[in-house]
Amino acid sequence: MTDESASEQDPGAPMRDDEFFALREGEVAAALPAQFDASLYFIGRIRTPWQSREQCPKNPRESDAVCTVELDPRWAPGLEGLETVTHVVLLYWMNRTRRDLVRQWPRHYGERRGTFALRSPARPNPIAISVARLVRIEGSTLLVTGVDCLDNTPLLDIKPYFASTDSVPEAVVGWHARRGR
Amino acid sequence: MTDESASEQDPGAPMRDDEFFALREGEVAAALPAQFDASLYFIGRIRTPWQSREQCPKNPRESDAVCTVELDPRWAPGLEGLETVTHVVLLYWMNRTRRDLVRQWPRHYGERRGTFALRSPARPNPIAISVARLVRIEGSTLLVTGVDCLDNTPLLDIKPYFASTDSVPEAVVGWHARRGR
Repeated sequence: MTDESASEQDPGAPMRDDEFFALREGEVAAALPAQFDASLYFIGRIRTPWQSREQCPKNPRESDAVCTVELDPRWAPGLEGLETVTHVVLLYWMNRTRRDLVRQWPRHYGERRGTFALRSPARPNPIAISVARLVRIEGSTLLVTGVDCLDNTPLLDIKPYFASTDSVPEAVVGWHARRGR
Repeated sequence: MTDESASEQDPGAPMRDDEFFALREGEVAAALPAQFDASLYFIGRIRTPWQSREQCPKNPRESDAVCTVELDPRWAPGLEGLETVTHVVLLYWMNRTRRDLVRQWPRHYGERRGTFALRSPARPNPIAISVARLVRIEGSTLLVTGVDCLDNTPLLDIKPYFASTDSVPEAVVGWHARRGR
């Protein structure tokens, strides 16, 4: 196994310099702060059918594939009661990307946007969130649909999805809604 | 100003030992991993009217208070395009809590639950998410409604809320729905 494939199969591995994307025209990078402020544990892995970014669905509802969330057994007692929920929020770590981009030019949008107006993994703290349907729990493993990440993506958290506070059907992302016109 | 009040006013400050909650009956703590796996930058602060946990609303839709999200000016260009969205997902850091609890007995529920079945701040990675309505943007500051955190809570990320993937009005948290019966 070459370094390249090892890195491709382990999104938790530190990114090498040559994996950094070059800045495209109009993209802007900020100077990163001199130090970090807090630290994270990887509490498990998300297993998906997708081994490269090109294979990944563009958003979590584009695929019905049943994926598995493998929680480190140390945390398994934390699942008690989760079997009663229909949907979970998964937080996971997308570190194979640069963290200093403030303006980006995503290939499929063809227009420059600020990082915080995008769901791009390239952001100061590359934490992604996905709302997934919980199919069932087997021991310390969750079977879910509705994730779009690379196989072996490091898991940060599992939360119950509350429609009362998390669901806003009328929400609009203006720049995105105008794209089709 | 005493140490106590300093700590109360700065949720980003490291927690002192005497702030650890004692385990209640039925609560279970896991052994924390020996090391961390990734690191975070605090990219700003959320300013709210609430200086103590007792003052905080129990959930983000309980208050209409307009709060401000003060983004570190270094990241301000990342807001370009965000003015077109109606709702944002805010990620923030809740570190004044223990990270090893796997089973908890939240005071207001009266029943033991696994950490991942709860939205409690006490979890291995104390990252909270709130869906907030964006009122407007002034420079590097966002005015929002729908947050429930302590004043000065460290900000980790701002994302546009996409109803197409983030809104699931029919989602059910069974254990919570059964409480009222």
